[in-house]
This record gives sequence, structure tokens and C-alpha cells, in this order.
Amino acid sequence: MEKLQPYFESNKQRFLDELLDLLRIPSVSADPKFKDDVLRTAEYVKAKLLAAGAENVTLEQTKGYPVVYGDKIIDPKLPTVLVYGHYDVQPADPYELWHSPPFEPVIKDGNIYARGSADDKGQMYMHVKAFEMMLKNNSLPCNVKFMIEGEEEVGSENLETYVKANTSKLKSDVVLISDTSIIANDTPSITTGLRGLAYLEVEVTGPNRDLHSGVYGGAVANPINILCDMISSLHDKDRKVNIPGFYDDVQIVSDSERAEMAKAPFSLSEYEKDLDVNEVLGEKGYSTTERVSIRPTLDVNGIWGGYIGQGAKTVLPSKAYAKVSMRLVPNQSSEKITKLFEDHFKSIAPKYVKVKVTNLHGGEAAVTPTDTVAYKAASKAMEKTFGKAPIPQRTGGSIPIVTMFERVLNTKSVLFGFGLDSDSIHSPNEHYGLFNYYKGIETIPYFFQYFTEMSK
Amino acid sequence: MEKLQPYFESNKQRFLDELLDLLRIPSVSADPKFKDDVLRTAEYVKAKLLAAGAENVTLEQTKGYPVVYGDKIIDPKLPTVLVYGHYDVQPADPYELWHSPPFEPVIKDGNIYARGSADDKGQMYMHVKAFEMMLKNNSLPCNVKFMIEGEEEVGSENLETYVKANTSKLKSDVVLISDTSIIANDTPSITTGLRGLAYLEVEVTGPNRDLHSGVYGGAVANPINILCDMISSLHDKDRKVNIPGFYDDVQIVSDSERAEMAKAPFSLSEYEKDLDVNEVLGEKGYSTTERVSIRPTLDVNGIWGGYIGQGAKTVLPSKAYAKVSMRLVPNQSSEKITKLFEDHFKSIAPKYVKVKVTNLHGGEAAVTPTDTVAYKAASKAMEKTFGKAPIPQRTGGSIPIVTMFERVLNTKSVLFGFGLDSDSIHSPNEHYGLFNYYKGIETIPYFFQYFTEMSK
Repeated sequence: MEKLQPYFESNKQRFLDELLDLLRIPSVSADPKFKDDVLRTAEYVKAKLLAAGAENVTLEQTKGYPVVYGDKIIDPKLPTVLVYGHYDVQPADPYELWHSPPFEPVIKDGNIYARGSADDKGQMYMHVKAFEMMLKNNSLPCNVKFMIEGEEEVGSENLETYVKANTSKLKSDVVLISDTSIIANDTPSITTGLRGLAYLEVEVTGPNRDLHSGVYGGAVANPINILCDMISSLHDKDRKVNIPGFYDDVQIVSDSERAEMAKAPFSLSEYEKDLDVNEVLGEKGYSTTERVSIRPTLDVNGIWGGYIGQGAKTVLPSKAYAKVSMRLVPNQSSEKITKLFEDHFKSIAPKYVKVKVTNLHGGEAAVTPTDTVAYKAASKAMEKTFGKAPIPQRTGGSIPIVTMFERVLNTKSVLFGFGLDSDSIHSPNEHYGLFNYYKGIETIPYFFQYFTEMSK
Repeated sequence: MEKLQPYFESNKQRFLDELLDLLRIPSVSADPKFKDDVLRTAEYVKAKLLAAGAENVTLEQTKGYPVVYGDKIIDPKLPTVLVYGHYDVQPADPYELWHSPPFEPVIKDGNIYARGSADDKGQMYMHVKAFEMMLKNNSLPCNVKFMIEGEEEVGSENLETYVKANTSKLKSDVVLISDTSIIANDTPSITTGLRGLAYLEVEVTGPNRDLHSGVYGGAVANPINILCDMISSLHDKDRKVNIPGFYDDVQIVSDSERAEMAKAPFSLSEYEKDLDVNEVLGEKGYSTTERVSIRPTLDVNGIWGGYIGQGAKTVLPSKAYAKVSMRLVPNQSSEKITKLFEDHFKSIAPKYVKVKVTNLHGGEAAVTPTDTVAYKAASKAMEKTFGKAPIPQRTGGSIPIVTMFERVLNTKSVLFGFGLDSDSIHSPNEHYGLFNYYKGIETIPYFFQYFTEMSK
């Protein structure tokens, strides 16, 4: 794929400009007020796939946002790569913490700052540009299909229905996904395990209306205090999740595997310094790396209730709320854990309050194999462009669709991400390195080449 | 004062219309965006005092919002009543829970619905109208001074400075305040005890930025979880406040006093039904009535952190916040309790987080005497218009200025309120009964008459 280099060099600036245009559309799938923007983003991706030379490009309608499909079948006998990505992004708030507006991308210190730059517009778009390079230079070595969805950040609610209805159309030999990170720009890695997710919202109701805390305070249960009691009880003193049955199905990782994991470069003091914490906190008996990969966890992602404006208001509120998510490991069922949480949370509710639990979304943990042709091709491609073989590693995030593809399409995925954990995805000032964007565009064609050669 | 009746009857509608105009101005002192409205409200009160016949009417400048002063000295040898009230109101949010806009008053089922209708515009304005009635009918029996402030809802921050600088101007024989409740419209009562207040805001910081909960969840302290742990630890299993020294100075109420209190009409089942709770919750060993009057308490008035929008966002936030207030009883010092809380809260902060505590405002508890001429005159006035002697009762709210008047002016107060605990003050759908508004206007002149007579 060395012959692509001149085309790459002379089109680099356009590749970037097109991504910046894509980042300017605020495709926040979680918030209905961005609906038109999300749809506009789907149209943009469709137009760019067409321009790159893809065929059968369509917006495949679902009950929610459309899936952008496109393909290029050069020979049915050759292998087929199904590229998955998503064009929707996380909400950008709190806006006030961004140094520049989230949907007005700026380049600073070698990074593209914008919501979605790393997750996943930047990483998804590398594939569109790599495809363009191969096609325009008569170098596409196998078949390719694109499936770019618009609901990943809200749990890919309608994707399974779509995939089930299109199993033959989506038939492929590997699903290639760039929506994860490498360890560092000089330490490539390939994600081989992802945690699952169970995400719920809880509502605690005390009195039927907001009350004056002077007149009623001390005489009636305050739902905020009760919610805090309940949340506090969800961890024990060893920071284990205190929900009966929570760990029952957790896959035990062998001592030798843990020893292997421990070899990956990691500096606890640098980690603490980067986050500006005196000390880390997590489940007793496990290292930081293990806590975010092979162990399930529970975090409150949001909490609110009562008066949260400026100054003082002496209210005893009627309701308090929290968003709670659990990261799951292989073998744990998102559905089962959701049910366990719901039952447990209701069971610990004192009689002074009423509790409502709503399931927001979930997904299963996944472990991807390292002994497949696709993994080996990906590893070889990274070794080619980084000059160093990538380290296989299990990480903390969740991409629930990986297990779904395995179940419905019977196809394994390769998590071929080029981001960094420090990209601040899902946070203010999300960014994606120019190095990473271009490295991805350069590396992907090698994957296609090696995958085709090694599949013979 | 029977001779005021014809004037009262023929001006009732105007008395109401003027109050509605006053309620239309959103004088939220806590929120700087309402600054012009708060100032407009002061001007309105000034104009109405002038129109009623008050003299020396001025907006007395402070570092914050002005105090509206006015007086009518008919004879320096006669007693002087200092009327205190406030023209500012609590914030109106959450707006979506109001059945009609908070600053567009409506009359429904005999109530005036609007922010400030009961607390305190409606109750304060009764005095302006009662004064007008007495003056226009040559019936004012003694001297009167008005001091109507605009910062009560933010802790009367600048009032003490003003009062200290004007002790001779404000000299009086009693401070008359209508900013409390009666037990029911057929059961008048006079508040003889008020709780103090210590109100703080806490901030818990974990990592230095919002993080992806998948990548970091389980490996670094989540400030929401930690804040919940800390708040939860502030009560023990008997719902006593778990801060060392918190109860040290609490005035012990004798068994005979408690027995006397227990005679006031109160139905726990009706209380629970009104609030729609299965069971009340409070400090073990005390009745509901005692919990809101003679015992100090701690409540979270607001909590927030992380993602609180629609849907799911997998964020591990950098910060979590809460507003915490404590109601205090006689002998407890607001300053001392504020310090105790601050020290304790910092001492229980685990090393994984950073904690900041900000003092928002406070005030001392107060017990007003029942053996004074002023109390007896107030009791007799209510007996005259309600046909039933009022019950003296200690209640849960705080009016910190009562102790300040005692300290600085050496003058006792009478808490001559006409509201109801069910008026939803500080809550959505605050309302004030037309019965109560008019009953106050009718009763106040009798207080003036009896107070003057009994002072001889």
C-alpha cells in the first residue's frame, strides 16, 4: 500500500476539512432537539460514501435514526470486510467547561477539539477516506460494506432489528470497528475485551410536594437524604458492589492471564497525576488496570434533586433522582444485572419513600479472539505503520453491538481503534489527535491487504 | 375598631388588586437576574406607604437591596410599633410544577396563587392596608414605623448593619412581624418560638475532569458516590444528626412543657395523608410536632452532579455538589454549628477527593415571650376577630432577624402571622387565602388599639 502515499499526501488537508465539516453538525442522538442535525449528519455521511465510490448507498430507515449503508463488491469470491461506525455523538454539556464551542472544531497542539472528534466521527471517517484512497488508486483488495449507525450513544436501540432483517446483505468475514483506544501513540494496542453495561435511572419520592424545610424538616423523610443512604449502601467497605448476586456470573480471569495483563505499561503515579487525585479508589484486591477491564463496577453518572440554583432555598424536595450504570464483564448478563439492581434497589427502599426504577439501556460484555486471521492482519498492519506490534488489551468501555454481531451475524469483530484514553470522550474538550486520524487512514489499507492475503 | 368596617368593605377589592400588582413583580433576591425587579418592588412599596399616609418614606440604601422605611409619629409619648416585613421572594423554580405562572397571580378556590403571596408580600401588605384604614379614619392610636426589607430570603445580609446604624430612628416598644402561620383558619395561634438556621454548600471533587465511566469507572473515586457516602453518614440509625457536638447546646425542654405542647391539636394520620407518605421519619424519641419545633435537624436542600439531562450519558463526573441546611433550636449558635459542620465534613472526606465548604447563610433560633403587653394585645386582637383565643406555639421555620432585633434594638417581637403551613411557601403553587389576607387587615388595628390601651 506504499503506492497510496502520494494520494494521501496531496489530499491530507481535504481529508481533515471534510472531517471538520462533519464535526460541525451537532448530531446528539440523546436529545430530541437535535433531531434535524442528526438526520443532516446521516445525509452528509451518505454523500461522502457516494463521493468515495461506494455503491448501493442508502439511508436505511429504522424506528429511530437511519443506518447509512454502502458497499463495493469487487469479487464475491474475495473476503468481505464490514466496517461499523457511528455518526451520532454524546451530549456536549456542561458547555461552560469547553474551552471552545463543542461544535466549532479547532486545531490546537496537534489535536482536533470537538464533540465526536474521537467518538466516533473522527475514527469512523478514517474508514471512508481509506476506502477512497484504495478505490481511487485501484488498490481495493477485497469487498467492503459500510454500516454507519446514528444511535450508538443511546444504546443502538434499533440496530439489532435492522441487522436481523438484513443478515445476508450484511454478510461478511469480519466486522471492523474503530471506536476504541491505543495505549499511547508510541505503544499501539488492540482492544480484545470490552465491558458490558446496565444503565438505569432511579426516582425517590418523599412527600407529595416540595415543602418548606423549616416547617417540615426533621419530621418527614427527605428523598435526597434517603437516596444518598441508598446509593451509599451499594458499595461495601472494600468497594465491592453490594447487590446480592452481582458477582455470581463474573468470569474468573486466571492468575497467569492477570500476570500477562500486568506486563502492559502502566504507571499509577502518572495516572494519579494526570487525574490530579491523591489516591485512586477501587475494588480491593485488584490493580487499577484490572478494575477497569476484568471487574464489574457501579457508578452514579448523575444525581439531582431540590434547589440547585444560586444561593440558598430552604426546600425539602418531593423527589430526588440518580442515573446509575454498571459496567459488566464477560458472562454477566446485562438483562439479569438490570433486574438484580431493580429488585435490590426497591428492596432497600425504606417505607418512608416510594421508589421508581427505569431501565435506560444496556449491552453485553465482549471478548474478541486473538487467534483469527482478522486479528493477525490488524496486528500486522499496526506493526507496519507504528513500527511496533500492538499489545492486546481488555478495556473498560462498552460496545454492546460487538456481541450482537456475533450472535446475529455469527461474525467476529476486530476493535481497530486509534484514539487515546486521554481524548476526553463523553467529556468537555473531547479531542482527537491529527497523528491518530492520519495514522488510522494510513493503517486501514494495510489491514485490507493483509486480511485478503492471509485469508487465501 | 368596628368603625373601620365600612371603609374596609368598600375598599376590599382595591386592597386585593394592589396586592396582585405587587405579586406581579418577580422580586427574587437570590438571583441577580431579577435585580431590576427587586428594585422596582421596593419602589412600589414606597409609593404605597406614601399613598397610605406614611411620612419620612425613603429607600434606605444598603450594600444590597434597600430597606423601605416610613413612619407616622402622632405623639412621642404614645407607644411605638415597628412593623417588619420583606418584599423579596424565594426563587420560583421548578417552574414546570406550577399550575399557573408564579408571577401571574390567579384567584382559585379562595386562594391567591403566586410566589410571595404568603411569604411575605401578602402578609406584609396587610400592615400597609391596616395602617391606611386607621389613618384615613382618624383611628391610629399610637405611633408606627415601617421597616420592609428586600433580602430576607437571602439571609438579611445587610439588615444588621442598617439597624445598628439607625437604632434611635428604629426605637420602638415592639416589633410586629407577620411572616408565620396559624394552626388553621378556625384555630388561631401565635408563634412563640422559631428555629435558627445554618445553610452551607459543599463541593466534592474527584478527578480533575469529567471522565468516561467505562474507561475510568471503578478505578477512581466518583465524587457523587463519595458525596452520598458523606451525606449518608450525617445521620445515625436513630436519625440523630451525626456531627460531634451538634446537640451540646440544645435547650432541654421540660417534660411539663412537652406535655403542654402535646395538647395542641395535631393528627398524625391527617399529616401523613396530606403529604401522601406511608410513614413519617424523624429523630427517635420525639413526636412529629417536637421534631419540627424543639429539636434541631439536618436536611439536604439540593444535590447535583454529573449528567442530569434526558437519556443516558456514561460520565464519571469531576464534581458533585449539595446544599445542606440545619435548623437550630434556642441556645445553639448558628456560627458555632456552621463551624462544627464545616470541620466535620472536611474531616470525613476520604483522601480520594477534595472537599470545599461554603457558608451561605445562618440565623439564630428565637423564643418570644408570652408575658409581655404586646403578646397579650396580639392574643386579645385575634380572639376578637377569630372568636377564639390563639394557641402559643413553637414552629420550625427561621426568622433570624428576631434575635438580631432583640440584641441590637433590645426590643421583643410578636410573630403575628396569618398564613397556613399548607400555603406551599418556598414551593411551587404558593398561595395565600383571601380569608387570611382580609382577616389580617381586620385584626391588625385591634392589636394597635389593645397595645396602646394596655401600655398605659
